[in-house]
Amino acid sequence: MSLVHELSSLLPAARISTRVADLEVAAGDESACQPVRPDVVVWPLSTDEVSRVVGCAWTHGVPVTARGAGSSLEGNPIPVRGGIVLDLSRMDAVVEVHQEDLQVSVQPGIVYNRLNEQLKPWGLFFPPSPGGSSDVATIGGMVANNASGIYSVKYGGTREHVQAATVVTGTGHVLELGTRSRKTSSGYHLLGLVVGSEGTLAIATQLTLSLAGLPQGRKQGALTFPTEKDAATAIATMMRYGVDLAAVEFLDRRSIVALNRYRGFGLEEQPSLFLEVHGTPDSVDAVFETAQAVCEEQAGRVIVLPDGQNPWDVRHFTTRAIQALKPEGKTIRTDMGFPLSRLPEVVEHSYAIAERHGVVLHTFGHAGLGILHALLREDPADTQRWAAAQRAKDEMVGFVLSVGGTASGEHGIGLGSQKYVAQEHGSSLALMKHIKRVFDPKHILNPGKIWPDEGVDG
Amino acid sequence: MSLVHELSSLLPAARISTRVADLEVAAGDESACQPVRPDVVVWPLSTDEVSRVVGCAWTHGVPVTARGAGSSLEGNPIPVRGGIVLDLSRMDAVVEVHQEDLQVSVQPGIVYNRLNEQLKPWGLFFPPSPGGSSDVATIGGMVANNASGIYSVKYGGTREHVQAATVVTGTGHVLELGTRSRKTSSGYHLLGLVVGSEGTLAIATQLTLSLAGLPQGRKQGALTFPTEKDAATAIATMMRYGVDLAAVEFLDRRSIVALNRYRGFGLEEQPSLFLEVHGTPDSVDAVFETAQAVCEEQAGRVIVLPDGQNPWDVRHFTTRAIQALKPEGKTIRTDMGFPLSRLPEVVEHSYAIAERHGVVLHTFGHAGLGILHALLREDPADTQRWAAAQRAKDEMVGFVLSVGGTASGEHGIGLGSQKYVAQEHGSSLALMKHIKRVFDPKHILNPGKIWPDEGVDG
Repeated sequence: MSLVHELSSLLPAARISTRVADLEVAAGDESACQPVRPDVVVWPLSTDEVSRVVGCAWTHGVPVTARGAGSSLEGNPIPVRGGIVLDLSRMDAVVEVHQEDLQVSVQPGIVYNRLNEQLKPWGLFFPPSPGGSSDVATIGGMVANNASGIYSVKYGGTREHVQAATVVTGTGHVLELGTRSRKTSSGYHLLGLVVGSEGTLAIATQLTLSLAGLPQGRKQGALTFPTEKDAATAIATMMRYGVDLAAVEFLDRRSIVALNRYRGFGLEEQPSLFLEVHGTPDSVDAVFETAQAVCEEQAGRVIVLPDGQNPWDVRHFTTRAIQALKPEGKTIRTDMGFPLSRLPEVVEHSYAIAERHGVVLHTFGHAGLGILHALLREDPADTQRWAAAQRAKDEMVGFVLSVGGTASGEHGIGLGSQKYVAQEHGSSLALMKHIKRVFDPKHILNPGKIWPDEGVDG
Repeated sequence: MSLVHELSSLLPAARISTRVADLEVAAGDESACQPVRPDVVVWPLSTDEVSRVVGCAWTHGVPVTARGAGSSLEGNPIPVRGGIVLDLSRMDAVVEVHQEDLQVSVQPGIVYNRLNEQLKPWGLFFPPSPGGSSDVATIGGMVANNASGIYSVKYGGTREHVQAATVVTGTGHVLELGTRSRKTSSGYHLLGLVVGSEGTLAIATQLTLSLAGLPQGRKQGALTFPTEKDAATAIATMMRYGVDLAAVEFLDRRSIVALNRYRGFGLEEQPSLFLEVHGTPDSVDAVFETAQAVCEEQAGRVIVLPDGQNPWDVRHFTTRAIQALKPEGKTIRTDMGFPLSRLPEVVEHSYAIAERHGVVLHTFGHAGLGILHALLREDPADTQRWAAAQRAKDEMVGFVLSVGGTASGEHGIGLGSQKYVAQEHGSSLALMKHIKRVFDPKHILNPGKIWPDEGVDG
């Protein structure tokens, strides 16, 4: 194969592979989407190597899909048109800590938790904490999906924290985007366009992130509520009152039951909120008391987690716990985002829709942001229930779109949510396709994602 | 003129004008750039009317420049190629307050202060407070320039507060961008691209903004320092320690002298910081004390403004006060943004550069964001001093670019800062031009801005 031959002139043989085992690893992600093997996997170590590989792909008109940890949930890195997978996991260095500016420059393959371990001695952290994936998700993957996490309710999502980036476009050109100034009004915001574009516009090879100082004071807690709607109302009210929560996670009763079954956490089996407050040692108690008072109006009760467990160590296992309830199944999941005032309504509607379709759902999410995941775990072999679960998902997503929401709060569109894109974006979808062509004229960067692939000239 | 005739079929005669007085008003802004009269001014009242006017301009290949208050500082709305000025000042309605979601939908012509007056009964406000222009600047203009203001250090700039927008592209097409969800990972971030594009990609006709709750507690104060460098070091240190300031404005000694001369404020003539803290009635004192302690390490001293004056009422007049020192002059101004740790160095360098060129500068700005304006007030008729002031500006901007900064922190590029764009954006400037063509294929929206106009096929 002449492509592989040419790649051999760009990278050492040890960093190019066509072995089935390597192609298999690069074929899939954590979604229910069908894996597809690429033709070749490469492990570049520098911007220059990425540029040369993409340049080679451009010459040959071969697809290139960048890959981090493969922990995405919508098929985002599946190389559906084959070609080259650019595995960036070995580009995992902290390039420079700009301590005085609360910034860090990193390579894209560094894992979220690993970055924060390295930042700890500097008194800094990168806030968007991508839930159960924090110990595997790479910064490059978070940037590609504009990921959010438990602390995004206070600190924002990934896009707001990307100050500057070195990126390689679909022609192999290297661009420097952004600035180290906290604020700029100079030129078009190409950086914000590349963030969240799922590797379809450009591949980031270095990122400068803005950070937060580690809070001096921190307080965590958990509350239970009689119903899911009570918990949802409490969240919407706290956010409206501006209660300064660093995190407020919602778990429905069924998710709690699943967690108890999975790991014997011994949690009270009620709809629950897990909270965290950041501030000074004095201020966190006051904020927590305000939160508690609002929750008590919705019959919320502060509970103590058994054995002094940390709420995030529990929360971490939610998806796995739900999946374990039906190991033979696959997961259909929503990634709904919506105006926060609609949270109680979205929760109620989602249960009603699932009930009508005869399927069982579990709901949880960064509810303070207005993000709710509904997980339906079904066996695809049971075609009738699988189809019913799909219909339930369509109706739930349709409802949030009808109230000004989004089909993807934080996971990206990938393959899994493409059918909602036309409804959400309407006529601006045509413009997005034109912009794709500006960055990637031959349509080789992660083709087939966000909207159905229409071929090289799409 | 057939264009005006055709416009008459789209709008009532009372909202179309070719009168010299109207053309004159639409010709310029607050910058030193040469005004240029358009051929016709129109006052649309709806998205539909804007769409039809732009559609007509598209047919005729005639430039269309959207205009708000004309308070911009870089020539941004000057219709340098003539054509139609679309004056949006009559589209100034608050369309809907979404109180529970801390959002508001507005038309673009509403003035910043007027919006906040209307939001006050709801307990909400739109934070980016554009300094001395707050009583004239329109939301549409702020969005076009991604404006920031005194409260952006805590709450962010304009882009971060735009949730959704109705926009009209250069072909007259109406697009709905964004979502009312606080967070989305769906599709390309076209909304963020349009914000800050200075009316060159699309014209916003409705905007949904995210708001903040009015703080329960608020504390203001002022400090003086022996030198500008001491004040700058204090700011950089406070931001590094994460002191939660809502505003921290820097004024050099000369700006204070100018303010005293302009309005007899009776201020102590020393480099000064004006601060504001937002929080609970209890927390603001504690934060202010921390700020004071940091400032005292740099020999800063808390002062009481004479006659119980509010610092922002004083700050408001800074530009006018400096201009009044030389009424026959024009203003050359920088809009530098840079990594905050460089603030003391940028301040020192700017004075040294001005001294070397024999010109006098005044510096002030949202220094907590890393934004510094240096104002040089000279008479263009004195060609030697005018050229020296230009060279001084070039060197100051060159310095911040060399340390990872930006030529425009908040005013946009317009006409005034075009010469720095190639240096700042390098090869991505070519991509910006391609994107311009995607939104505006005939190059009719505010042509000649951000980079030098290369004609319709540019």
